[in-house]
Amino acid sequence: MNYQELYEQIKAKKSFLCVGLDSDPKLLPACLKDAKYPIYEFNKAIIEQTAQYTVAYKPNLAFYEAEGVEGWIQLEMTLNFIKENYPEILVIADAKRGDIGNTASRYARAFFEKMNFDAVTLAPYMGSDSIKPFLEYEGKWSVVLALTSNKSANDFEQLQLESGEPLYKKVICEAMTWGSKENTMFVLGATRPEKLAEIREYCPDHFFLVPGVGAQGGTVEEVAKYGLNSHCGLLVNSSRGIIFADSSENFAVVAGEKARELAEEMALYIK
Amino acid sequence: MNYQELYEQIKAKKSFLCVGLDSDPKLLPACLKDAKYPIYEFNKAIIEQTAQYTVAYKPNLAFYEAEGVEGWIQLEMTLNFIKENYPEILVIADAKRGDIGNTASRYARAFFEKMNFDAVTLAPYMGSDSIKPFLEYEGKWSVVLALTSNKSANDFEQLQLESGEPLYKKVICEAMTWGSKENTMFVLGATRPEKLAEIREYCPDHFFLVPGVGAQGGTVEEVAKYGLNSHCGLLVNSSRGIIFADSSENFAVVAGEKARELAEEMALYIK
Repeated sequence: MNYQELYEQIKAKKSFLCVGLDSDPKLLPACLKDAKYPIYEFNKAIIEQTAQYTVAYKPNLAFYEAEGVEGWIQLEMTLNFIKENYPEILVIADAKRGDIGNTASRYARAFFEKMNFDAVTLAPYMGSDSIKPFLEYEGKWSVVLALTSNKSANDFEQLQLESGEPLYKKVICEAMTWGSKENTMFVLGATRPEKLAEIREYCPDHFFLVPGVGAQGGTVEEVAKYGLNSHCGLLVNSSRGIIFADSSENFAVVAGEKARELAEEMALYIK
Repeated sequence: MNYQELYEQIKAKKSFLCVGLDSDPKLLPACLKDAKYPIYEFNKAIIEQTAQYTVAYKPNLAFYEAEGVEGWIQLEMTLNFIKENYPEILVIADAKRGDIGNTASRYARAFFEKMNFDAVTLAPYMGSDSIKPFLEYEGKWSVVLALTSNKSANDFEQLQLESGEPLYKKVICEAMTWGSKENTMFVLGATRPEKLAEIREYCPDHFFLVPGVGAQGGTVEEVAKYGLNSHCGLLVNSSRGIIFADSSENFAVVAGEKARELAEEMALYIK
């Protein structure tokens, strides 16, 4: 999916919502406990109720890996379900991979060929070697960690460099030279909205994947105020606030309502 | 496995060799092409021939993930084979994970509970949130990326901070405050031996996992000269130089010889 196609979907749905499929088996509704593939059944129900309000899904791979082979099977089933039924929706592997070149190439193959993800989140610590192999796939996206929503982002991401800029700015500016707005996004936490305005000054065109709305304290209003660009340029993620909003048999319907509420708020900012 | 047990194994085997199981399916010997589980059969043969010279194995997860569910099955088979036959050997998941706290907890569960790895490599970009959940497991190890062996380590890892130190030094010094020499190691590339001496000054006791010997150009002699401490403190990794030294039916025997050669060189430095 390219930049323009993503923007067209956003305009059509009047939403820039990304639903995080952090489908923790311990938090699944009791009614799914006896299913053969409980994570998949949960995801399928959530997706059916939220797809009309959603432009991207983001499975968080930790919750699937923690289940071993059974988890990977259900991840692939989820991905296939989205691709078959909602091919217009961007699917992001929230994997935060990062390794040397020959290994990064294998991860790229894993996510973009073996599995048909549209995008993958990547850690920049090891530099360009760990990002460039992903940029070789046309129509696929590298989503590079820049300024994350967690408290300990202060430990390293916000350190001031000798050159006078913070590390996350250096990461963004370097990564902008490796790829383009057509294949690179940045992860920027909703918990630091004032930074979004600052980053838009030197990164006007790229999409930002913004987690941290809801459970972590960020708001759509502030993110939109500081982060929107001429092509929207935002994917705002909510995970727990949608998928675990209700634990009864009605869980999926309630998730759909929560997604609709966020999308209605987002519609105010889509031209 | 704790610090003292690891040191005892090193003294007993007179080796600080880690064999990297970067078992790329495309590079497997032709004689394994028709096996039901070719990666596992390859690993098993390599392990049987190298175990007496080896104190650690390090499967590189990218090569397993790239095969999807089949890859994960063979990873688990490999791990179980090592644990059943060579329980004294440390097994490191080279996964380079790093995420926010609740997600990091799930990765820790994946590697330390669901699978029985002794150690996992971790990316520090997102700060302490992404490391601390792994440190809660007694007898398990976090192996934190510090100064890696790849060329683009220059992009960020070596950046000078306003405080006058390079980023990798800040990472090491911070991570030393989160854990101890009993549960934390650092990844330091063999391609920068002069840095090892410098790092030993402020990090005298921790183990270093040192990749980059062989194919990437580092030498055991230089790494030992600058990196050894009173408890050895080194795990020197070789992957391709051992496991893909030969592609005939004799591949495992040749791998054993390559491992023996490296171990004999290492024995010169073990008291």
